[in-house]
Amino acid sequence: MRVIDIDDPADDRVDDFRDLNSVDRRPDLPALPGGRPGRGLVIAEGVLVAQRMIASRFAPHAFLGVSRRLDELADDVRVVGEPDVTAAVPFYRATAEVMAEIVGFHLNRGVLGVARRPPILSVDEVLSGARTVAILEGVNDHENIGSIFRNAAGLGVDAVLFGSGCADPLYRRSVRVSMGHALLVPSAQFDDWPAGLDDVHRHGFTTVSLTPDPQAAVLAESVDAERVAFLVGAEGPGLARATMRATHVQARIPMSRGTDSLNVATAAAIAFYERVRSGTMGQ
Amino acid sequence: MRVIDIDDPADDRVDDFRDLNSVDRRPDLPALPGGRPGRGLVIAEGVLVAQRMIASRFAPHAFLGVSRRLDELADDVRVVGEPDVTAAVPFYRATAEVMAEIVGFHLNRGVLGVARRPPILSVDEVLSGARTVAILEGVNDHENIGSIFRNAAGLGVDAVLFGSGCADPLYRRSVRVSMGHALLVPSAQFDDWPAGLDDVHRHGFTTVSLTPDPQAAVLAESVDAERVAFLVGAEGPGLARATMRATHVQARIPMSRGTDSLNVATAAAIAFYERVRSGTMGQ
Repeated sequence: MRVIDIDDPADDRVDDFRDLNSVDRRPDLPALPGGRPGRGLVIAEGVLVAQRMIASRFAPHAFLGVSRRLDELADDVRVVGEPDVTAAVPFYRATAEVMAEIVGFHLNRGVLGVARRPPILSVDEVLSGARTVAILEGVNDHENIGSIFRNAAGLGVDAVLFGSGCADPLYRRSVRVSMGHALLVPSAQFDDWPAGLDDVHRHGFTTVSLTPDPQAAVLAESVDAERVAFLVGAEGPGLARATMRATHVQARIPMSRGTDSLNVATAAAIAFYERVRSGTMGQ
Repeated sequence: MRVIDIDDPADDRVDDFRDLNSVDRRPDLPALPGGRPGRGLVIAEGVLVAQRMIASRFAPHAFLGVSRRLDELADDVRVVGEPDVTAAVPFYRATAEVMAEIVGFHLNRGVLGVARRPPILSVDEVLSGARTVAILEGVNDHENIGSIFRNAAGLGVDAVLFGSGCADPLYRRSVRVSMGHALLVPSAQFDDWPAGLDDVHRHGFTTVSLTPDPQAAVLAESVDAERVAFLVGAEGPGLARATMRATHVQARIPMSRGTDSLNVATAAAIAFYERVRSGTMGQ
């Protein structure tokens, strides 16, 4: 990394990190027609997430951080064994105070990476070769989306796909809560929903809707297909009826009754776990 | 409920709801020797949590809320069928603006309940009759504790017990994230830790430490005892070695490697689920 000291918070070289909490200018919000002028940049917070950004297809084009985090990140880059990837990338080094003025708040994690959004992956791309995937509908909470990515990474899920009504999985808070796995686990967005489920079926997946409905099949008896796609909806409303009808199986987590009994990311984690367990148990 | 209109934010009848974000005066922080002057009141936020507080052993002695929430809460009280429980309890009715001035911030949920802390339950009390319990060590994040209570309620866990180093499970944010289940699921604190595990063993429990250690037994093969206590530690350090040594079994969630692979509440939920599943499957 090329280390460049930043003393003046107004320095325009660090504009990509400016005012991360400001509604009007946030660089990490995609630009909307006639709306906010955000540039849709992807922001990684902290050494661990920045390191995962380096290892991902979201190539960081700059870092901003305090001296101590530069050292830690440099160590990590060496451990990963890819020093060349970031050799030319500027690391803007600043004091915690200058950094807080740029970012707009005091940042405990001490380092930020920033990347432009690469071309999105297609549904076909993320499905081919995958054995287990998660499909989200109406999950509009960034932290829940981040948790689902983290759980997907921790429990061997190959991809996360988005139906309608979901929040931006690349927003800073999603990326942070995912521990950077939102950048590493392949993801894609359906253009047509729920019609796009046809593509999932064409790829040989059994689609399993998670629901608290006591009439639904038991989860543990619903996951033994070669390829499984778990569908989860927002807390409260859950999956739309048309979506559930378009899937092969409706499955419930035993004892988990009522719409507020489990958080959506927790329910997804249990489904992912069940898939691992039944595979590990050699059924 | 006795409805009392509050027009003046300085009215001392609503002092129990005052400055909930102010470090110095927060009523929901327990008083520490020579420390913060919090009164350790338990605060319920929102209609659902307030309703669960009414149903719990934490009898609310007052509510503060806007008119609409009063109506919703009154309906809930009727549904629960216990109108008498709160008949004499004052509901301080205020506008959203007056309420924000009292509380110190704008409260989306529009209603608060407040209760004094009843005598704590003993470890013996919460263990007798229980079949599955969770034991926490070093979990110092209020949201994680709240999530663990919610998951416990959703997946049939009978009690949550606290070893050393845990945050206050009755702090407002824990109660909110738990969806009020922190008030309903019995909980207790060990005086002696980890020596107190002897009491758990004396009650006939098999103690199972959750760990990412690849040498540990597989979770699904570790939960079939009549009575099971799951132990979870903080993310990062995990359970102390002495604690793990004091338990019967060390178990891992398959594929979940590394200290950051799963959030502690998610790992606990998977253990709770495994207990339900293996019971449901009639093994």
